[in-house]
Amino acid sequence: MAKSLEIGWNQVEQVVDSALAEDLGSGDVTTEALIPPNQEGEAYLYAKNEGVLAGIGVATMVFHRVDSALRVKELVADGSRVYPGDRLAAIEGKVASILRSERTALNFLQRLSGIATETAKYVEASSGTKALITDTRKTAPGLRILEKYAVRVGGGHNHRRNLGDGILIKDNHLVALGSSGVGLGEAIEKARQHAPHTLKIEVEVESVQQAQEALSAGADIIMLDNMSLEDMRQVVELVGGRAVIEASGRITLDKVRAVADTGVDLISVGALTHSAKALDISLELERK
Amino acid sequence: MAKSLEIGWNQVEQVVDSALAEDLGSGDVTTEALIPPNQEGEAYLYAKNEGVLAGIGVATMVFHRVDSALRVKELVADGSRVYPGDRLAAIEGKVASILRSERTALNFLQRLSGIATETAKYVEASSGTKALITDTRKTAPGLRILEKYAVRVGGGHNHRRNLGDGILIKDNHLVALGSSGVGLGEAIEKARQHAPHTLKIEVEVESVQQAQEALSAGADIIMLDNMSLEDMRQVVELVGGRAVIEASGRITLDKVRAVADTGVDLISVGALTHSAKALDISLELERK
Amino acid sequence: MAKSLEIGWNQVEQVVDSALAEDLGSGDVTTEALIPPNQEGEAYLYAKNEGVLAGIGVATMVFHRVDSALRVKELVADGSRVYPGDRLAAIEGKVASILRSERTALNFLQRLSGIATETAKYVEASSGTKALITDTRKTAPGLRILEKYAVRVGGGHNHRRNLGDGILIKDNHLVALGSSGVGLGEAIEKARQHAPHTLKIEVEVESVQQAQEALSAGADIIMLDNMSLEDMRQVVELVGGRAVIEASGRITLDKVRAVADTGVDLISVGALTHSAKALDISLELERK
Amino acid sequence: MAKSLEIGWNQVEQVVDSALAEDLGSGDVTTEALIPPNQEGEAYLYAKNEGVLAGIGVATMVFHRVDSALRVKELVADGSRVYPGDRLAAIEGKVASILRSERTALNFLQRLSGIATETAKYVEASSGTKALITDTRKTAPGLRILEKYAVRVGGGHNHRRNLGDGILIKDNHLVALGSSGVGLGEAIEKARQHAPHTLKIEVEVESVQQAQEALSAGADIIMLDNMSLEDMRQVVELVGGRAVIEASGRITLDKVRAVADTGVDLISVGALTHSAKALDISLELERK
Amino acid sequence: MAKSLEIGWNQVEQVVDSALAEDLGSGDVTTEALIPPNQEGEAYLYAKNEGVLAGIGVATMVFHRVDSALRVKELVADGSRVYPGDRLAAIEGKVASILRSERTALNFLQRLSGIATETAKYVEASSGTKALITDTRKTAPGLRILEKYAVRVGGGHNHRRNLGDGILIKDNHLVALGSSGVGLGEAIEKARQHAPHTLKIEVEVESVQQAQEALSAGADIIMLDNMSLEDMRQVVELVGGRAVIEASGRITLDKVRAVADTGVDLISVGALTHSAKALDISLELERK
Amino acid sequence: MAKSLEIGWNQVEQVVDSALAEDLGSGDVTTEALIPPNQEGEAYLYAKNEGVLAGIGVATMVFHRVDSALRVKELVADGSRVYPGDRLAAIEGKVASILRSERTALNFLQRLSGIATETAKYVEASSGTKALITDTRKTAPGLRILEKYAVRVGGGHNHRRNLGDGILIKDNHLVALGSSGVGLGEAIEKARQHAPHTLKIEVEVESVQQAQEALSAGADIIMLDNMSLEDMRQVVELVGGRAVIEASGRITLDKVRAVADTGVDLISVGALTHSAKALDISLELERK
Repeated sequence: MAKSLEIGWNQVEQVVDSALAEDLGSGDVTTEALIPPNQEGEAYLYAKNEGVLAGIGVATMVFHRVDSALRVKELVADGSRVYPGDRLAAIEGKVASILRSERTALNFLQRLSGIATETAKYVEASSGTKALITDTRKTAPGLRILEKYAVRVGGGHNHRRNLGDGILIKDNHLVALGSSGVGLGEAIEKARQHAPHTLKIEVEVESVQQAQEALSAGADIIMLDNMSLEDMRQVVELVGGRAVIEASGRITLDKVRAVADTGVDLISVGALTHSAKALDISLELERK
Repeated sequence: MAKSLEIGWNQVEQVVDSALAEDLGSGDVTTEALIPPNQEGEAYLYAKNEGVLAGIGVATMVFHRVDSALRVKELVADGSRVYPGDRLAAIEGKVASILRSERTALNFLQRLSGIATETAKYVEASSGTKALITDTRKTAPGLRILEKYAVRVGGGHNHRRNLGDGILIKDNHLVALGSSGVGLGEAIEKARQHAPHTLKIEVEVESVQQAQEALSAGADIIMLDNMSLEDMRQVVELVGGRAVIEASGRITLDKVRAVADTGVDLISVGALTHSAKALDISLELERK
Repeated sequence: MAKSLEIGWNQVEQVVDSALAEDLGSGDVTTEALIPPNQEGEAYLYAKNEGVLAGIGVATMVFHRVDSALRVKELVADGSRVYPGDRLAAIEGKVASILRSERTALNFLQRLSGIATETAKYVEASSGTKALITDTRKTAPGLRILEKYAVRVGGGHNHRRNLGDGILIKDNHLVALGSSGVGLGEAIEKARQHAPHTLKIEVEVESVQQAQEALSAGADIIMLDNMSLEDMRQVVELVGGRAVIEASGRITLDKVRAVADTGVDLISVGALTHSAKALDISLELERK
Repeated sequence: MAKSLEIGWNQVEQVVDSALAEDLGSGDVTTEALIPPNQEGEAYLYAKNEGVLAGIGVATMVFHRVDSALRVKELVADGSRVYPGDRLAAIEGKVASILRSERTALNFLQRLSGIATETAKYVEASSGTKALITDTRKTAPGLRILEKYAVRVGGGHNHRRNLGDGILIKDNHLVALGSSGVGLGEAIEKARQHAPHTLKIEVEVESVQQAQEALSAGADIIMLDNMSLEDMRQVVELVGGRAVIEASGRITLDKVRAVADTGVDLISVGALTHSAKALDISLELERK
Repeated sequence: MAKSLEIGWNQVEQVVDSALAEDLGSGDVTTEALIPPNQEGEAYLYAKNEGVLAGIGVATMVFHRVDSALRVKELVADGSRVYPGDRLAAIEGKVASILRSERTALNFLQRLSGIATETAKYVEASSGTKALITDTRKTAPGLRILEKYAVRVGGGHNHRRNLGDGILIKDNHLVALGSSGVGLGEAIEKARQHAPHTLKIEVEVESVQQAQEALSAGADIIMLDNMSLEDMRQVVELVGGRAVIEASGRITLDKVRAVADTGVDLISVGALTHSAKALDISLELERK
Repeated sequence: MAKSLEIGWNQVEQVVDSALAEDLGSGDVTTEALIPPNQEGEAYLYAKNEGVLAGIGVATMVFHRVDSALRVKELVADGSRVYPGDRLAAIEGKVASILRSERTALNFLQRLSGIATETAKYVEASSGTKALITDTRKTAPGLRILEKYAVRVGGGHNHRRNLGDGILIKDNHLVALGSSGVGLGEAIEKARQHAPHTLKIEVEVESVQQAQEALSAGADIIMLDNMSLEDMRQVVELVGGRAVIEASGRITLDKVRAVADTGVDLISVGALTHSAKALDISLELERK
């Protein structure tokens, strides 16, 4: 399992268990009342919309955490494009166990596939440029590791995973430093002295002039916040490859191509995770 | 805190702590490098879009879990309509603590407000009818208690919270029972005998005829799955108040009024939670 | 495992692990000092009293959490009546592992079987009537899911599992509402408006007149608290099947038949879980 | 809080939180529907039967975990004898918070007071002798620390808390050792060599002869399992104070005095914890 | 696994999981970027210094928690003396899984082997005397169960595991009692009356006279704190086997033999756990 | 509290709670038997050796988790040099609470101060050079966040916190890639393409030639593993500031100056955390 996810399975297991506790905490009264405990059956996961699948391994984990005797066969791999009616996985075993798992498995699968699908749209829209689509830390609380995985599945790249794996000097830091008269360049210098030397230093800027200041101070990455296309182009030119340039700030699907065409290296899009629509997927028991 | 949420605060605390661990697990290297630990400051949460606020108490909890000495003043109550530029809360104390809390507080607040905002649109669209808008169990794993709270804040009602607090006989149950020749009416009878007598019995039906069958068998609630408006009207008429009627199945915002006008009692909408867009909210430190 | 319990096994696993931590937290010094780690052996669980077995699957889980290589064979199924000397399960494997598991496995099995046994007495005493015996929320903290399972094993039915899966308006609610002049009927009305429409509404009443009031207001279930047999009979008659009637309030084994004979639908008994005696069960290693 | 319990409060807090999650996990729908969130009120805990109070501090903790703003005044201290109608504690604050806490607080308080009450009966029955009443490890899974506290409150003493804090060679150990020809005396010798030198060595024996053998081998404590009164007296005499003597094995309340009169030092009673009846206690809101 | 550790595996599993969360919480970005998920390989653990191996089973558990499909073969058993270049275990399976486990497995193995190695030096230095080397509670927070296991592996014995499994009256207790005029003898008497009768009573003394006082009062174990060799000898003589004698207080490796030669029974050494150097061990992938 | 630690206090709280559970899990039998629950007193933490203090805030947290009413006054700040006899903190309140906290508080404080003290020696030995002393991931499982804090307190810098916050291509990665014919330069290129663009790329090399190869391929940091001083000097010269250079591999205190003099930027020392000796600190109750 861990392998197909390429992420720490024992952490995912905790998330899965807590999702199951939430849904199954006081049992499944309908299934208990209606379904003979030993009845066996077979079910399929079906795509109901077109999109990119992500999280099939998590869905499998849900089934196995509910009943380790369920036999799950993944029919489509994460990253595949799926179409309405496609069978995504087959599940065999106790019908009661399948029904207990259904909603939780789907909740993971629909959300992660929704994120991968949304990401793929941005990636396609910017294809042929050098710009990479990246996520942000604007993820659903508790699901970051999975949502960032879904972004990768959709062809995107991951930005910082948390506050500990990269220096990112943002506007609020500069406001705080400003009260002691510390400017952008000095802030970068201070970061270089005090932060772990293994981390890159990124700075958020709002104008071409600030970008120039950041470059002179040796920033590794310059994030252009809500800048005009023209300004972005200017920054790309003046930086000339001496720093990584990231465009940021409500870049919607219809704007992403134009941004990519300015020559920036990274385009970060919060909406990939905070506003993606779920991909419609259902579970259906086979009639016998 | 518990009071403004009206939900179990110690459970929310666990969700908050695990979200903080996710973001702050290995510290905030930028803040550590740049901000003097004793620097005090003031910040505000600002709405950047129009919508319905939900989760201000959770945001407050985030600030307090990071630093119990932060002074948080909630300026707008959950359920209020907010407009771009509105100040939602004031936070005073260590700047470093405010910065460490920022993203996690916003992730909760933006997501919950997004859900409340979406819910309010459906509620408004069906206003003047007797139909109540309800959620489903299609929530982000681990966040159900909060997301269902946000639906209430937006004017919606909660459907089942988990598999243990209501009998809901769905298509998959009928398929499973069908293999032993048990039909819809018998299923309802079986549920009445074996399930807790304190729970209502709801059945999902796909045709007027099945609705009639469910009514005859004494279902308390009849869920009409993906039915035409005409069929819904027929069911409303034949039921004549003897059972609660719920409409379900991809009912979008542009269709909800027509559905409500058929006379159904409940309209359940998965998209309230599985596909709501985040409401844009930001935190800004005050310049001194 | 999950199957024989019909309950969420991963939650039970947490309860089992925390019970093991409690008993085995700093190791088993006696076994470590005396028993060669590789010595193999065989043990049996024996009933020492007559009763109804419940929890054999939990006992098995305890053995497997201590040592997944233990081979456990359940010889008697939950719900069976057992007699002194009956072998309930055979356990083979490392003797040290068996000894480390013994007390924790027995603590679960004895308690759950005690509850099933007590429940069975009430069920038998009311047999031939339509009254169902139900439990309450008066369970040992942390063990509710298991104790309610034991009640079902003993032939009883489950009442509310928690505060979220049923509306139950009790005396304290009426006292609180009374201070604003809200009476029984209005309370029921208010509950219908504000509570999830999927839940039944139950009201606790203390007199025939209150029962009449509850009926008129449309209560789904009427709980008769500490009422005389004569009053219960009157309520049964006046309700005439239009609501479910539950008798409650220190109904002991010697009184339960008379209560059942009044024609009530449910009899809830807190003592099933809060005061059941453990069933005597022991583990004995086979001599070789 | 910790002080009144004399036990690790942060462990108790976890037990309390998990009990609250069990009861309040999906909210309290009745209270949410009926009680205005800001309504204040006052409630009292009342004894409904005679007994010994234990766990008032845990009940207080429950109220505070639900709402830290509740004002709880403990009116009777743990260990006090209470009578029907006695007020045990006063709780003031939000009515909704009081109602959410009620059942969980009572579940702890009733169970612990039941154990203290049962213990006090055994202690009184053996008063005037030198025998001390002790508990066993036959406790409800997850509640051991609290149940052993309740035994102390009732005047009893604690036996081993877990498998790590005392050597107790029982019949199953001897069976296991017997297969390699190791007898009782050798077992004691082996324990002395391999076990921590800070722990006493206790041995379970079933005959006077075995007791003699244990004494000769230097056992610190000799447990007489299901022995006749006459045999117990003989063992007391032959030991002559050179070891502590413990009587064990289904010693009921009507037999305990006779056992104590044989001169044994300790009488361990599993029923104190595994079969104690809950003490009847209720919470009642004050009418205004 | 449990067997080779002889300790509660499910507790160790929690420690292992939390160590993995610490290191692998946001994934292994290097391995993800470089290593094909399906590449298989083989690696060995190698000793780089001479010492006593401890914790090989914990290392195995780390590998299996990361990827249950890894095949781990332990080549050297805990307690064996290892030399630079010795192969300790072979691990086969996904290369990515091996790399993700490496550091966490080594952190356990190096620390525990360091403790076993240090212990073995003290045991050897006192060989031929009757003195046993014991540990203390001065262990790394969270790792006590494992560190005490490592001491046993190194030939040492365990002292108290926690504050609950032995009475140890230390200087601070006597200071506290002294304010009410209670002396050493009275303290021992008080402990005998109030503490569990299954526990031994140990007293810390600082002079021969106090040792005499402790003996007269019936202490089971007398701990000599920072006493001169001459004084230790005097205590050994006057006690004459009527109590266990423990030497304590910064007994370094070069002093331990002289202390052992005084005839004391136990020598407790905090440095075994609080200051042991890690044993150097590495993991190396095989070139193909 | 959080502020003095500059680290996530709610994570530290979990570590503290689990350490307390370990030591205090079944209570403190000695204190319970001897110390009146209401006795008040005062105690001091004393340094017994010279060193650098780290963790005083964690010790304070231990006292407060045991008894929130204890009054703790920190007399010396983290990072201060302390000498034998220095008073580090004053604790007032219930004597029983102080005694229950003692060992756990000291275990944290002694270990963290030991690490800070060891770090300070390396920092001092390399003072006047540009080399920074950094830690590694060779920390005690479960304590990384605290141990890395102690390194900073001692004047050191932090290297990667976990596998997610930096690319570090080590020998084992190269071995794995080598089987497909991928060399050092290509590995760096692959990392740049696939890893998050916000992370620096570090490579471990074993020769001057490899260092040259890494530089050409654009490595951000080059780690010299076990290289001779002469080779280090050569690498420093050829890199000429175009990459950060880190020396690594069993650099002991007597070698660190010579390494620093070669001109490297970072010197990473595993022994700071895996082999530091505890600083001797004690708690003493004041006599009254």
